[in-house]
Amino acid sequence: MSLDQTLSRVDETLDAAVARLCDLLRIPSISTDPAFANDCKAAADWLVQDLQSLGADARAIETPGHPMVVGHMDGPSGSPHLLFYGHYDVQPVDPLNLWDADPFDPQIIGSGEDRIIRARGAADDKGQLMTFVEACRAWIAQNGALPCKITFMFEGEEESGSPSLQPFMRDFADELRADIALICDTGLYDHDTPAITTMLRGLVSEEITIHAANKDLHSGLFGGLAMNPIRVLTQILADLHDDQGRVTLPGFYDGIPDLPADQRAAWDALNFDAGAFLGAVGLSQPAGEAGRLPLEMLWSRPTCDVNGVWGGYTGAGFKTVLPAEAHAKVSFRLVDGQDPDQVHQAFMDHVTSRLPSDCRVEFGKSKGSPACVMQTSDPKFDAARAALSAEWPKPAQYIGIGGSIPIAGYFKTILDMDAMLIGFGKEDDQIHSPNEKYDLRSFHKGIRSWVRILDALSGGSK
Amino acid sequence: MSLDQTLSRVDETLDAAVARLCDLLRIPSISTDPAFANDCKAAADWLVQDLQSLGADARAIETPGHPMVVGHMDGPSGSPHLLFYGHYDVQPVDPLNLWDADPFDPQIIGSGEDRIIRARGAADDKGQLMTFVEACRAWIAQNGALPCKITFMFEGEEESGSPSLQPFMRDFADELRADIALICDTGLYDHDTPAITTMLRGLVSEEITIHAANKDLHSGLFGGLAMNPIRVLTQILADLHDDQGRVTLPGFYDGIPDLPADQRAAWDALNFDAGAFLGAVGLSQPAGEAGRLPLEMLWSRPTCDVNGVWGGYTGAGFKTVLPAEAHAKVSFRLVDGQDPDQVHQAFMDHVTSRLPSDCRVEFGKSKGSPACVMQTSDPKFDAARAALSAEWPKPAQYIGIGGSIPIAGYFKTILDMDAMLIGFGKEDDQIHSPNEKYDLRSFHKGIRSWVRILDALSGGSK
Repeated sequence: MSLDQTLSRVDETLDAAVARLCDLLRIPSISTDPAFANDCKAAADWLVQDLQSLGADARAIETPGHPMVVGHMDGPSGSPHLLFYGHYDVQPVDPLNLWDADPFDPQIIGSGEDRIIRARGAADDKGQLMTFVEACRAWIAQNGALPCKITFMFEGEEESGSPSLQPFMRDFADELRADIALICDTGLYDHDTPAITTMLRGLVSEEITIHAANKDLHSGLFGGLAMNPIRVLTQILADLHDDQGRVTLPGFYDGIPDLPADQRAAWDALNFDAGAFLGAVGLSQPAGEAGRLPLEMLWSRPTCDVNGVWGGYTGAGFKTVLPAEAHAKVSFRLVDGQDPDQVHQAFMDHVTSRLPSDCRVEFGKSKGSPACVMQTSDPKFDAARAALSAEWPKPAQYIGIGGSIPIAGYFKTILDMDAMLIGFGKEDDQIHSPNEKYDLRSFHKGIRSWVRILDALSGGSK
Repeated sequence: MSLDQTLSRVDETLDAAVARLCDLLRIPSISTDPAFANDCKAAADWLVQDLQSLGADARAIETPGHPMVVGHMDGPSGSPHLLFYGHYDVQPVDPLNLWDADPFDPQIIGSGEDRIIRARGAADDKGQLMTFVEACRAWIAQNGALPCKITFMFEGEEESGSPSLQPFMRDFADELRADIALICDTGLYDHDTPAITTMLRGLVSEEITIHAANKDLHSGLFGGLAMNPIRVLTQILADLHDDQGRVTLPGFYDGIPDLPADQRAAWDALNFDAGAFLGAVGLSQPAGEAGRLPLEMLWSRPTCDVNGVWGGYTGAGFKTVLPAEAHAKVSFRLVDGQDPDQVHQAFMDHVTSRLPSDCRVEFGKSKGSPACVMQTSDPKFDAARAALSAEWPKPAQYIGIGGSIPIAGYFKTILDMDAMLIGFGKEDDQIHSPNEKYDLRSFHKGIRSWVRILDALSGGSK
């Protein structure tokens, strides 16, 4: 067995790997929209068959939502047991008119090193998920077997709040438990610098509806006398931030630790270019808390954002209506030290305390997950970091991430496992946006990275 | 000639007048739907023939939309010249399933004083329009001729934005100009109190789009660092009102006259029941400027309302998006003393002054019309008021209306004429809704009211 030969096999079989990924990308597995339930099932079945083609003992397990795919492959006696997690569901595609082509007709665009794979899910997360599957395929093809025992776990509800995930993990805990989890849903630090994400923000989300009159009113007949729920809603939402960009909920920042000095030094050394980061999306000014580093705003400070707002007449032309109700979807990104339930309660109090007596609020189904900070003292972290550093032009870094990957916390709380978050996405991948793409280089070097990591975690260069 | 005899003739011939109204109500003259264009023409022709049967010189004049009906009848030398305006087109009837019967098969329902005429257009505006025509018919039948010169003008596009109205009024200005206009498209103050509407609010409307990033962003990747345009928009909209319900635009209230003491006393005497008015739509608290009478809030104070707001993800489930843009439709009801252009400019300044450097605003196509306040010092107003008071259980009132009736302003700006808005509709007439009706009492006493008004404006009791 030879690491170099396995890496060469990855290079030689790349076209076939891309073709398999495109097959998976053609399935519109949008989990949040019930109209695509059959497509989610189709994506799960596709993965089951692909794992079975590797020789895995794989099946799709029904949940109250979309199926969970689980597969097992044995490794040498005494080898570690790794659990690999990815998700096969994707975000909705609207606004469809901003896509250059059908989001579910994957296209390979460009030439040479700069080629990209454009499709919904290319980066989030089908392309990333398949880097690991293809690494296993190359290992098996070259060496006849994997170097360690692997359990695959592919979720179909990550983009719709993972309602079935925790019950599933509890029900199948004995089958899923391994030595460590690997999660491939994150990114490179930059084009040449791989990363292991060790800090993730949590999330609290809630939908509110403000009700006023019992029907839509004519603003000529009632305007000036009747309360407009949009006025109430905009006041509630505007009051969520002060003029220094701080979130105003009482107690919101209580218990958040200061950034440790060594962490701050490491982040300083990254020379993060906030101007370039924002400039890439047409912005220039950091909009977070005054006085914080841009990387703190993204990785270690909490936020509040309105992700959707609607009410009244939103079509063409004008309608002088006072609507009966107005709506908003609000989310908070949480950091270490914040309790999702407390933040949610503070938000509900913020809303109800601003309601005029003539209005009532209806809350939706809140979801919450705490932030997650990994213990990098486990030697597997340094082993994986070294493997990544061998593949990429620059040394791998431990970084934070502004988003939430609740599964990382669940591995800890439900299965008592640490997780290593390693991925090859890039900032310009347009995930959750029109024209999502994944660099062919990310896909190729991602597969090679996993080959190296499997080798490193199994005891080193074979 | 005797006023009493003419009124008696109205009473004796009421059944025939109702039958004629039902003939007109059977024509489905829905102006906004091209499928009913021939029915609009049929309604116009019906009116031309009815006016001709009175001896009028009447014709239907083609416009780019539906025809305008114009008719003339001479009066005694030296008598005033009145222009009467009404509209023969009606609203669409959907949702049809909420009607108790065919909207174009008029039914007389109930018994005695409480009978109603149920049909689309019964109150808005065919029933009201015919009160005046029937009054003229009774005058001519009883007295051989009208007591004054009258021009009839019946529009067929009032329910679809009156696109042909202003050009028509300009083209036929010489033919239409009279001493005063009479408009029958408003209501009683209450069941027993007739009213002349002397104040109508104006309107400024505008649509804004706040642009931030050049695409939708993931709130996990960018949240905390990138500006969210919904945050900017909600701050702009929330800042439109202070905590006393006042509009904050600089200069917004400049030049608005205080309510004259006699007007305030008259409105006080109306004993407007704001609780009942709001209670009918599920509300209880006047939401306008602190310290103002509810009737002031509705009739003589300006307002600001957000009629529509949207941005981000508004579908089922949750999407942690930072949208590229956010939108609102905002309108202002204007009163005497306010300039629509100044209000519009102040609103644009309000928006642009609150834009962070990373955002830009796009304004839509603003529309504006000033408020319209009639000069009740013209003795015709008091004459008409006395005539109405003689017919109804309680004295007639000068009232305001919160909405806009653009034709009233056009009479002023295009033909340099004042207008008296007198009508007999009631709040429960369900105009624009299923089961529209007009009280038989409104129709009967409406005809009698016009007989008295014609008499009063022509010099008094003959």
